[in-house]
Amino acid sequence: MSEPAMTRFPVPDIDDLPEELQERIDNERERAGFVPNVFVAYGYKPKQARAFFDYYDAIVDDSPLSREEIEMIIVAVSGANDCLYCVVAHGALARIYGEDPHLAEQLATNHRTANISDQHKAMCDVAVKLTEQPTAVGDDDIERLREYGFSMEEVWDIASLTSLFNLSNRMAHFADWRPNEEFYEMGRGQ
Amino acid sequence: MSEPAMTRFPVPDIDDLPEELQERIDNERERAGFVPNVFVAYGYKPKQARAFFDYYDAIVDDSPLSREEIEMIIVAVSGANDCLYCVVAHGALARIYGEDPHLAEQLATNHRTANISDQHKAMCDVAVKLTEQPTAVGDDDIERLREYGFSMEEVWDIASLTSLFNLSNRMAHFADWRPNEEFYEMGRGQ
Amino acid sequence: MSEPAMTRFPVPDIDDLPEELQERIDNERERAGFVPNVFVAYGYKPKQARAFFDYYDAIVDDSPLSREEIEMIIVAVSGANDCLYCVVAHGALARIYGEDPHLAEQLATNHRTANISDQHKAMCDVAVKLTEQPTAVGDDDIERLREYGFSMEEVWDIASLTSLFNLSNRMAHFADWRPNEEFYEMGRGQ
Amino acid sequence: MSEPAMTRFPVPDIDDLPEELQERIDNERERAGFVPNVFVAYGYKPKQARAFFDYYDAIVDDSPLSREEIEMIIVAVSGANDCLYCVVAHGALARIYGEDPHLAEQLATNHRTANISDQHKAMCDVAVKLTEQPTAVGDDDIERLREYGFSMEEVWDIASLTSLFNLSNRMAHFADWRPNEEFYEMGRGQ
Amino acid sequence: MSEPAMTRFPVPDIDDLPEELQERIDNERERAGFVPNVFVAYGYKPKQARAFFDYYDAIVDDSPLSREEIEMIIVAVSGANDCLYCVVAHGALARIYGEDPHLAEQLATNHRTANISDQHKAMCDVAVKLTEQPTAVGDDDIERLREYGFSMEEVWDIASLTSLFNLSNRMAHFADWRPNEEFYEMGRGQ
Amino acid sequence: MSEPAMTRFPVPDIDDLPEELQERIDNERERAGFVPNVFVAYGYKPKQARAFFDYYDAIVDDSPLSREEIEMIIVAVSGANDCLYCVVAHGALARIYGEDPHLAEQLATNHRTANISDQHKAMCDVAVKLTEQPTAVGDDDIERLREYGFSMEEVWDIASLTSLFNLSNRMAHFADWRPNEEFYEMGRGQ
Repeated sequence: MSEPAMTRFPVPDIDDLPEELQERIDNERERAGFVPNVFVAYGYKPKQARAFFDYYDAIVDDSPLSREEIEMIIVAVSGANDCLYCVVAHGALARIYGEDPHLAEQLATNHRTANISDQHKAMCDVAVKLTEQPTAVGDDDIERLREYGFSMEEVWDIASLTSLFNLSNRMAHFADWRPNEEFYEMGRGQ
Repeated sequence: MSEPAMTRFPVPDIDDLPEELQERIDNERERAGFVPNVFVAYGYKPKQARAFFDYYDAIVDDSPLSREEIEMIIVAVSGANDCLYCVVAHGALARIYGEDPHLAEQLATNHRTANISDQHKAMCDVAVKLTEQPTAVGDDDIERLREYGFSMEEVWDIASLTSLFNLSNRMAHFADWRPNEEFYEMGRGQ
Repeated sequence: MSEPAMTRFPVPDIDDLPEELQERIDNERERAGFVPNVFVAYGYKPKQARAFFDYYDAIVDDSPLSREEIEMIIVAVSGANDCLYCVVAHGALARIYGEDPHLAEQLATNHRTANISDQHKAMCDVAVKLTEQPTAVGDDDIERLREYGFSMEEVWDIASLTSLFNLSNRMAHFADWRPNEEFYEMGRGQ
Repeated sequence: MSEPAMTRFPVPDIDDLPEELQERIDNERERAGFVPNVFVAYGYKPKQARAFFDYYDAIVDDSPLSREEIEMIIVAVSGANDCLYCVVAHGALARIYGEDPHLAEQLATNHRTANISDQHKAMCDVAVKLTEQPTAVGDDDIERLREYGFSMEEVWDIASLTSLFNLSNRMAHFADWRPNEEFYEMGRGQ
Repeated sequence: MSEPAMTRFPVPDIDDLPEELQERIDNERERAGFVPNVFVAYGYKPKQARAFFDYYDAIVDDSPLSREEIEMIIVAVSGANDCLYCVVAHGALARIYGEDPHLAEQLATNHRTANISDQHKAMCDVAVKLTEQPTAVGDDDIERLREYGFSMEEVWDIASLTSLFNLSNRMAHFADWRPNEEFYEMGRGQ
Repeated sequence: MSEPAMTRFPVPDIDDLPEELQERIDNERERAGFVPNVFVAYGYKPKQARAFFDYYDAIVDDSPLSREEIEMIIVAVSGANDCLYCVVAHGALARIYGEDPHLAEQLATNHRTANISDQHKAMCDVAVKLTEQPTAVGDDDIERLREYGFSMEEVWDIASLTSLFNLSNRMAHFADWRPNEEFYEMGRGQ
């Protein structure tokens, strides 16, 4: 079959986007070798796109969580929300940063049967609980993370990443964003 | 009873926050007469706070949706997510911009029995559906909004606000943010 | 917008109602200064109305629970069931008997983040659990209430009020009852 | 195994109950040949018991619904709520009034596969929907019942019975009421 | 009303079925006095039917679980899945092997209020949990069964029966299989 | 991390298995180049294993559905049930028979956003509905499949595969079966 259109909304020309966002896109193209669809699709509303990427960068740049942990959380949350774009795009990053070609499919399907440490299972448990039953999260969840050795800043960032991808999973569902083909193969390490 | 602490995380001193965020807080204090707790609580991670408020401002400043419609969506979504902070803080704004002292309680309890137009009911229906069943949203939901006269840009912003408050509702639950007392009384118009 | 009709069913003339029910309505008018819509709407079937108010009065008149506790349970249950009529009408009573202008919105949105004692949180926990997952209620729930100091008669009345408003919340949804405007402002104490 | 106690609460002596309730119990004993456990168990709070039986009698005595239809609704609702007492006690009545020894098990298990008319399937559909998703009930449900020939009074009573047994199913779960053995065999017609 | 057709699919003539399946049906006819509808209805695909009955026979013939326990599990699972065929057909077997005319209705309605031992309650708890929330089953569930004295082989068979009837309950729903009238009365012991 | 054990139950020695099952395993080893873990793990109860593989073979050998369609259904169902073993093992087969390296991740995450035909989307819709809401499946679902051109035999096999993997997904969860590493890479076609 031919590939489906990558979104339900009009797609801007990259050259028409604000300079600041073009720079962010150039960075991404350099790093990945292609422009992830979300950058163009989100560009329908450049200021919102800018704020979203700033939020993500603010976590990635400063978080005491490792880059592997960041992507593990994103894939577990996006799997719980059945979001193809984020499972595939961040699945690639989870494979790369986790140096494990099977990690993404395990986390996206069911983090409880992923081949990860108990500490990371607790981390994903809380992320998925905050995704699926936000009102049920309580002091005991935070204490559990603390007992596994996460600092208060790490605990915050687990919640912050979870919350941010509850935003982007919904945008991807609503706008029907589809992942670039390149993501599927990245980090398989053959 | 004495008031509960407003968050589970350390609260920064406003004077220690980055200047840009302090300005945003000053604006808010001027407009509202007090500093909403979320500004201080979110300040635990100033760059994330900055990105969140930029996202919200990007919608509020440019959206073809009216300010009343923006706050209606937020209250309906936050009610569906049982989020006290957002129901009370944005409930105040819904009363003010909607010029209706009963609007917030109606939307937060059940938008289907709110005293609003059929167009606004459709708008809240889609916002609540994207909140509770994101995978079930489809072309028919977008068509329904279009038939009620919403432009594609408005349709995007309905989804964008819904997604943004699925982020903030989760942060508020996780960090246990509590609304300032002032919000409860604003816009009651007696 | 104009106010919606207060029910999907025909509304009887108060003068045509059985005398006993008219007296009950007169009492209510005297106490509140107006006739709550439910009295007239329920009057479509006067004997059923009479039985419902008798049940409510049987609890209110004799219960070892305080009047504040009674209304707290009703608002928490009605919030869980998204019932506008009962949230607004009994929210007014919760504000008045609880002498707390913020109590109703807190309980209706999410009793877990209400500014109430641990004892009252346990009370609302059980009421909401019996509402949402009746088969899951067990000996441990009753023991928990007992440990918080509730007598067996109080435990019964917590369940009885919860059950009664699972009746009336459904009637209000089905018949589309709407609260009188007066309720929204009562007990705000400005 | 020995039979379990019939309730978690103290059981009053019938002779100590208010006279009016004793009469109601005498009637029941005469009709059925034994005293249904609910009459004694509910007697822990005689005024509440009185109001409950008055509500039920108010429907049974005056409803344009047939007695068979009344018991069909009760069994479908109680099955949806997994309530043993009401499934067994009213299942007996459904068998008797429906003159069908298989009706109760069919309705309690799944009214959609019961051997009943399309009109009665619609009736049970609405009763179960009001039980499980009260906020989702709308004008279309009432219209559907009307199209199947139910009068407005019948429509009300379908909702009223559903609501009443959402009360009693919860009391039975909470107090752990168990049905008398006699009910299991009644109406099997061998 | 006339009885509904027993399936949505064509019904084969028993004489046209493979010999091996005809023998299995003959056995059943001898034992029960009639041919259970499932044998004929499943015969639309004889090899699948053969495999299904082989699976069931493999458990029944070799399991360290008693025949009563086997049928208890099936009825509890089929009740949780609202499957009329299996509730009625295996309900008859539960009554017979359990020598208890009330057992089937208790288990099908709500195994938590069935008059069974704590050991059998734990057994049904796990069966129903594996039915309704398969991802939530974990080591603690297996340990709980072990503590109640079940061997590892029994634990496996509890899961295996549960899984097998999650297959057949779905076939019965999809193909709309209806139980033979004879099942309703078997094992009532009058 | 080291790989987790592949099951919670004792693993038999292949040489101790009944001859017929050993042959089936030899076939599989020849075809795939390795023995899928499920064959050994299921061997704890060889007769049950035999019946399960007979059921699967009965569909695969005779079904008018294509082999690609068969594996698509299995992956969509197993994704809905969050079953790692079946998603990974049958995901490999879906990639191979579908000649599409991205098909498995799309179907397992969310068949609604998979790059498949409308006919196959309808097929997966019904399979997932029968998995998640078996009581809600009705005549309209079967008619929809028929309108998309599926024969009655194909419709049956869609249901039969769905039901069979609702069995095996539960066994995999309960026994904690883990997929062989080889499956992850099969059919990626680089």
